[in-house]
Amino acid sequence: MRAIAAALLLAALSVATNDDLAAIRAVLDAQVAAWNRGDIEAYMAGYAQGDETTFVSGDTVTHGWKTVLERYKKKYDSRAKMGTLAFSNLVLRPLGKDDVVATGAWHLTRQADAPHGRFTLIVHRTPAGWRIVYDHSS
Amino acid sequence: MRAIAAALLLAALSVATNDDLAAIRAVLDAQVAAWNRGDIEAYMAGYAQGDETTFVSGDTVTHGWKTVLERYKKKYDSRAKMGTLAFSNLVLRPLGKDDVVATGAWHLTRQADAPHGRFTLIVHRTPAGWRIVYDHSS
Repeated sequence: MRAIAAALLLAALSVATNDDLAAIRAVLDAQVAAWNRGDIEAYMAGYAQGDETTFVSGDTVTHGWKTVLERYKKKYDSRAKMGTLAFSNLVLRPLGKDDVVATGAWHLTRQADAPHGRFTLIVHRTPAGWRIVYDHSS
Repeated sequence: MRAIAAALLLAALSVATNDDLAAIRAVLDAQVAAWNRGDIEAYMAGYAQGDETTFVSGDTVTHGWKTVLERYKKKYDSRAKMGTLAFSNLVLRPLGKDDVVATGAWHLTRQADAPHGRFTLIVHRTPAGWRIVYDHSS
Protein backbone atom coordinates (compact mmCIF):
# COMPACT_ATOMS: atom_id res chain seq x y z
CA MET A 1 0.00 0.00 0.00
CA ARG A 2 2.88 2.38 0.74
CA ALA A 3 3.99 2.40 -2.89
CA ILE A 4 0.45 3.06 -4.07
CA ALA A 5 0.05 5.89 -1.56
CA ALA A 6 3.34 7.43 -2.73
CA ALA A 7 2.27 7.19 -6.38
CA LEU A 8 -1.09 8.76 -5.60
CA LEU A 9 0.54 11.54 -3.57
CA LEU A 10 2.80 12.27 -6.52
CA ALA A 11 -0.21 12.30 -8.86
CA ALA A 12 -2.10 14.66 -6.55
CA LEU A 13 0.76 17.12 -6.16
CA SER A 14 2.59 17.04 -9.46
CA VAL A 15 2.32 19.56 -12.25
CA ALA A 16 3.13 19.43 -15.94
CA THR A 17 6.81 18.60 -16.46
CA ASN A 18 9.33 20.24 -18.79
CA ASP A 19 8.71 17.35 -21.20
CA ASP A 20 5.00 18.18 -21.10
CA LEU A 21 5.71 21.84 -21.86
CA ALA A 22 7.99 20.84 -24.77
CA ALA A 23 5.19 18.60 -26.10
CA ILE A 24 2.75 21.53 -25.92
CA ARG A 25 5.17 23.81 -27.78
CA ALA A 26 5.47 21.12 -30.46
CA VAL A 27 1.66 21.00 -30.84
CA LEU A 28 1.54 24.78 -31.34
CA ASP A 29 4.52 24.72 -33.74
CA ALA A 30 2.76 22.01 -35.77
CA GLN A 31 -0.36 24.17 -35.90
CA VAL A 32 1.57 27.14 -37.29
CA ALA A 33 3.32 24.93 -39.88
CA ALA A 34 -0.04 23.42 -40.93
CA TRP A 35 -1.67 26.85 -41.25
CA ASN A 36 1.19 28.15 -43.34
CA ARG A 37 0.86 25.32 -45.83
CA GLY A 38 -2.91 25.96 -46.06
CA ASP A 39 -3.92 22.80 -44.19
CA ILE A 40 -6.78 23.77 -41.85
CA GLU A 41 -7.55 20.13 -40.98
CA ALA A 42 -3.98 19.60 -39.74
CA TYR A 43 -4.14 22.93 -37.90
CA MET A 44 -7.30 21.69 -36.18
CA ALA A 45 -5.49 18.52 -35.05
CA GLY A 46 -4.08 20.68 -32.23
CA TYR A 47 -7.58 20.95 -30.73
CA ALA A 48 -9.31 18.17 -28.76
CA GLN A 49 -11.89 16.46 -30.97
CA GLY A 50 -14.78 16.76 -28.51
CA ASP A 51 -18.04 18.59 -28.15
CA GLU A 52 -16.65 20.55 -25.19
CA THR A 53 -13.84 22.20 -27.14
CA THR A 54 -14.59 25.91 -26.85
CA PHE A 55 -13.56 28.86 -28.98
CA VAL A 56 -14.19 32.44 -27.84
CA SER A 57 -13.66 35.16 -30.44
CA GLY A 58 -15.28 38.58 -30.71
CA ASP A 59 -18.80 38.27 -29.31
CA THR A 60 -19.08 34.61 -30.25
CA VAL A 61 -18.59 31.44 -28.21
CA THR A 62 -18.36 28.32 -30.39
CA HIS A 63 -18.58 24.81 -28.93
CA GLY A 64 -17.39 21.56 -30.48
CA TRP A 65 -14.40 20.62 -32.61
CA LYS A 66 -16.44 20.11 -35.79
CA THR A 67 -18.22 23.44 -35.43
CA VAL A 68 -14.89 25.23 -34.93
CA LEU A 69 -13.46 23.46 -37.99
CA GLU A 70 -16.43 24.54 -40.14
CA ARG A 71 -16.07 28.10 -38.80
CA TYR A 72 -12.39 28.19 -39.79
CA LYS A 73 -13.07 26.71 -43.23
CA LYS A 74 -15.73 29.33 -43.89
CA LYS A 75 -13.75 32.29 -42.55
CA TYR A 76 -10.45 31.28 -44.20
CA ASP A 77 -11.61 29.86 -47.52
CA SER A 78 -8.52 30.88 -49.51
CA ARG A 79 -4.75 30.95 -49.01
CA ALA A 80 -4.93 34.78 -49.35
CA LYS A 81 -7.27 34.97 -46.35
CA MET A 82 -5.16 32.53 -44.35
CA GLY A 83 -1.93 34.44 -45.01
CA THR A 84 1.11 33.58 -42.91
CA LEU A 85 0.61 32.89 -39.20
CA ALA A 86 3.17 33.47 -36.46
CA PHE A 87 2.94 33.09 -32.68
CA SER A 88 5.19 35.03 -30.30
CA ASN A 89 5.62 35.80 -26.58
CA LEU A 90 4.43 32.32 -25.64
CA VAL A 91 4.13 31.76 -21.88
CA LEU A 92 3.03 28.38 -20.47
CA ARG A 93 1.56 28.18 -16.97
CA PRO A 94 0.70 24.75 -15.54
CA LEU A 95 -2.60 24.30 -13.68
CA GLY A 96 -2.20 21.03 -11.83
CA LYS A 97 -0.81 18.11 -13.82
CA ASP A 98 -3.31 17.84 -16.66
CA ASP A 99 -3.88 21.44 -17.78
CA VAL A 100 -1.62 24.25 -18.95
CA VAL A 101 -2.58 27.82 -19.82
CA ALA A 102 -0.77 29.11 -22.91
CA THR A 103 -0.70 32.88 -23.42
CA GLY A 104 0.74 34.45 -26.53
CA ALA A 105 0.46 36.86 -29.41
CA TRP A 106 -0.73 35.92 -32.89
CA HIS A 107 0.14 37.75 -36.10
CA LEU A 108 -1.26 37.15 -39.55
CA THR A 109 0.66 38.57 -42.51
CA ARG A 110 -1.57 38.96 -45.56
CA GLN A 111 -1.47 40.84 -48.87
CA ALA A 112 -4.23 43.19 -47.75
CA ASP A 113 -3.64 43.59 -44.01
CA ALA A 114 -1.80 42.33 -40.93
CA PRO A 115 -4.27 41.48 -38.16
CA HIS A 116 -2.83 40.59 -34.77
CA GLY A 117 -3.90 39.99 -31.20
CA ARG A 118 -3.58 37.83 -28.11
CA PHE A 119 -4.64 34.31 -27.33
CA THR A 120 -5.31 32.33 -24.18
CA LEU A 121 -5.37 28.56 -24.65
CA ILE A 122 -6.15 25.84 -22.16
CA VAL A 123 -4.19 22.79 -23.22
CA HIS A 124 -5.27 19.48 -21.66
CA ARG A 125 -3.49 16.15 -21.31
CA THR A 126 -5.59 13.69 -23.33
CA PRO A 127 -4.95 10.02 -24.23
CA ALA A 128 -3.97 11.30 -27.71
CA GLY A 129 -1.47 13.83 -26.28
CA TRP A 130 -1.76 17.50 -25.28
CA ARG A 131 -4.69 19.15 -27.05
CA ILE A 132 -6.28 22.61 -26.90
CA VAL A 133 -9.68 22.38 -25.19
CA TYR A 134 -10.33 26.13 -24.89
CA ASP A 135 -9.24 29.08 -27.04
CA HIS A 136 -9.97 32.75 -26.38
CA SER A 137 -8.45 34.79 -29.20
CA SER A 138 -8.83 38.54 -29.55
CA MET B 1 -2.45 3.15 4.82
CA ARG B 2 -5.65 2.16 3.07
CA ALA B 3 -7.49 5.23 4.40
CA ILE B 4 -4.62 7.50 3.33
CA ALA B 5 -4.51 5.93 -0.13
CA ALA B 6 -8.27 6.40 -0.49
CA ALA B 7 -8.03 10.04 0.58
CA LEU B 8 -5.18 10.66 -1.85
CA LEU B 9 -7.07 8.93 -4.65
CA LEU B 10 -10.04 11.18 -3.95
CA ALA B 11 -7.77 14.24 -3.96
CA ALA B 12 -6.22 13.18 -7.25
CA LEU B 13 -9.54 12.53 -8.98
CA SER B 14 -11.92 15.08 -7.52
CA VAL B 15 -13.02 18.27 -9.18
CA ALA B 16 -14.58 21.46 -7.91
CA THR B 17 -17.90 20.74 -6.13
CA ASN B 18 -21.24 22.51 -6.51
CA ASP B 19 -20.38 24.41 -3.31
CA ASP B 20 -17.14 25.55 -4.98
CA LEU B 21 -19.04 26.75 -8.05
CA ALA B 22 -21.53 28.62 -5.84
CA ALA B 23 -18.59 30.27 -4.05
CA ILE B 24 -17.13 31.36 -7.40
CA ARG B 25 -20.48 32.83 -8.51
CA ALA B 26 -20.57 34.74 -5.21
CA VAL B 27 -17.09 36.19 -5.89
CA LEU B 28 -18.19 37.40 -9.34
CA ASP B 29 -21.49 38.77 -7.99
CA ALA B 30 -19.54 40.68 -5.32
CA GLN B 31 -17.29 42.11 -8.04
CA VAL B 32 -20.27 43.41 -10.03
CA ALA B 33 -21.84 44.91 -6.89
CA ALA B 34 -18.53 46.60 -5.96
CA TRP B 35 -18.08 48.01 -9.47
CA ASN B 36 -21.59 49.39 -9.51
CA ARG B 37 -21.05 51.30 -6.28
CA GLY B 38 -17.78 52.72 -7.70
CA ASP B 39 -15.48 50.68 -5.45
CA ILE B 40 -12.58 49.48 -7.61
CA GLU B 41 -10.61 48.22 -4.58
CA ALA B 42 -13.48 45.93 -3.58
CA TYR B 43 -13.88 44.85 -7.23
CA MET B 44 -10.19 43.90 -7.23
CA ALA B 45 -10.70 41.74 -4.12
CA GLY B 46 -11.98 39.10 -6.55
CA TYR B 47 -8.46 38.75 -7.99
CA ALA B 48 -5.60 36.89 -6.27
CA GLN B 49 -3.22 39.39 -4.69
CA GLY B 50 -0.05 37.98 -6.26
CA ASP B 51 2.54 38.93 -8.83
CA GLU B 52 1.34 36.11 -11.11
CA THR B 53 -2.18 37.43 -11.51
CA THR B 54 -2.49 38.05 -15.25
CA PHE B 55 -4.79 40.31 -17.24
CA VAL B 56 -4.97 40.08 -21.04
CA SER B 57 -6.87 42.87 -22.81
CA GLY B 58 -6.44 44.22 -26.33
CA ASP B 59 -2.74 43.88 -27.17
CA THR B 60 -1.63 44.17 -23.56
CA VAL B 61 -0.69 41.52 -21.00
CA THR B 62 -0.50 42.93 -17.46
CA HIS B 63 1.05 40.96 -14.59
CA GLY B 64 0.52 41.46 -10.88
CA TRP B 65 -2.47 42.43 -8.76
CA LYS B 66 -1.15 45.91 -7.93
CA THR B 67 -0.40 46.71 -11.57
CA VAL B 68 -3.89 45.59 -12.60
CA LEU B 69 -5.40 47.73 -9.83
CA GLU B 70 -3.45 50.82 -10.99
CA ARG B 71 -4.51 50.12 -14.58
CA TYR B 72 -8.19 49.98 -13.58
CA LYS B 73 -7.91 53.14 -11.45
CA LYS B 74 -6.36 55.03 -14.36
CA LYS B 75 -8.76 53.75 -17.04
CA TYR B 76 -11.90 54.15 -14.90
CA ASP B 77 -11.15 57.37 -12.98
CA SER B 78 -14.78 58.51 -12.72
CA ARG B 79 -18.20 56.97 -12.05
CA ALA B 80 -19.21 58.05 -15.58
CA LYS B 81 -16.39 55.94 -17.09
CA MET B 82 -17.20 52.99 -14.82
CA GLY B 83 -20.90 53.02 -15.72
CA THR B 84 -22.98 50.01 -14.74
CA LEU B 85 -21.47 46.54 -15.15
CA ALA B 86 -23.39 43.33 -15.81
CA PHE B 87 -22.20 39.79 -16.48
CA SER B 88 -24.30 37.25 -18.39
CA ASN B 89 -24.07 33.79 -19.96
CA LEU B 90 -21.74 32.61 -17.20
CA VAL B 91 -20.43 29.07 -17.71
CA LEU B 92 -18.12 27.42 -15.15
CA ARG B 93 -15.89 24.54 -16.20
CA PRO B 94 -13.77 22.80 -13.53
CA LEU B 95 -10.14 21.93 -14.35
CA GLY B 96 -9.14 19.45 -11.67
CA LYS B 97 -10.06 20.35 -8.11
CA ASP B 98 -8.33 23.71 -7.68
CA ASP B 99 -9.08 25.62 -10.90
CA VAL B 100 -12.24 26.58 -12.72
CA VAL B 101 -12.59 28.34 -16.07
CA ALA B 102 -15.35 30.95 -16.08
CA THR B 103 -16.63 32.11 -19.48
CA GLY B 104 -19.13 34.90 -19.83
CA ALA B 105 -20.23 38.12 -21.43
CA TRP B 106 -19.66 41.57 -19.92
CA HIS B 107 -21.73 44.68 -20.62
CA LEU B 108 -21.05 48.21 -19.48
CA THR B 109 -23.93 50.70 -19.63
CA ARG B 110 -22.66 54.30 -19.73
CA GLN B 111 -24.07 57.70 -20.63
CA ALA B 112 -21.93 57.89 -23.77
CA ASP B 113 -21.73 54.28 -24.95
CA ALA B 114 -22.35 50.62 -24.13
CA PRO B 115 -19.18 48.58 -24.61
CA HIS B 116 -19.48 44.81 -24.31
CA GLY B 117 -17.51 41.65 -24.92
CA ARG B 118 -16.47 38.27 -23.60
CA PHE B 119 -14.27 37.19 -20.73
CA THR B 120 -12.36 34.07 -19.83
CA LEU B 121 -11.32 33.83 -16.18
CA ILE B 122 -9.24 31.20 -14.44
CA VAL B 123 -10.42 31.06 -10.85
CA HIS B 124 -8.10 29.30 -8.40
CA ARG B 125 -8.72 27.84 -4.95
CA THR B 126 -6.51 29.89 -2.60
CA PRO B 127 -6.26 29.87 1.22
CA ALA B 128 -8.34 33.09 1.13
CA GLY B 129 -11.05 31.50 -1.05
CA TRP B 130 -11.62 31.31 -4.80
CA ARG B 131 -9.79 34.12 -6.57
CA ILE B 132 -9.26 35.09 -10.23
CA VAL B 133 -5.64 34.44 -11.22
CA TYR B 134 -6.05 35.03 -14.97
CA ASP B 135 -8.42 37.27 -16.96
CA HIS B 136 -8.65 37.54 -20.73
CA SER B 137 -11.31 40.14 -21.60
CA SER B 138 -12.12 41.26 -25.09
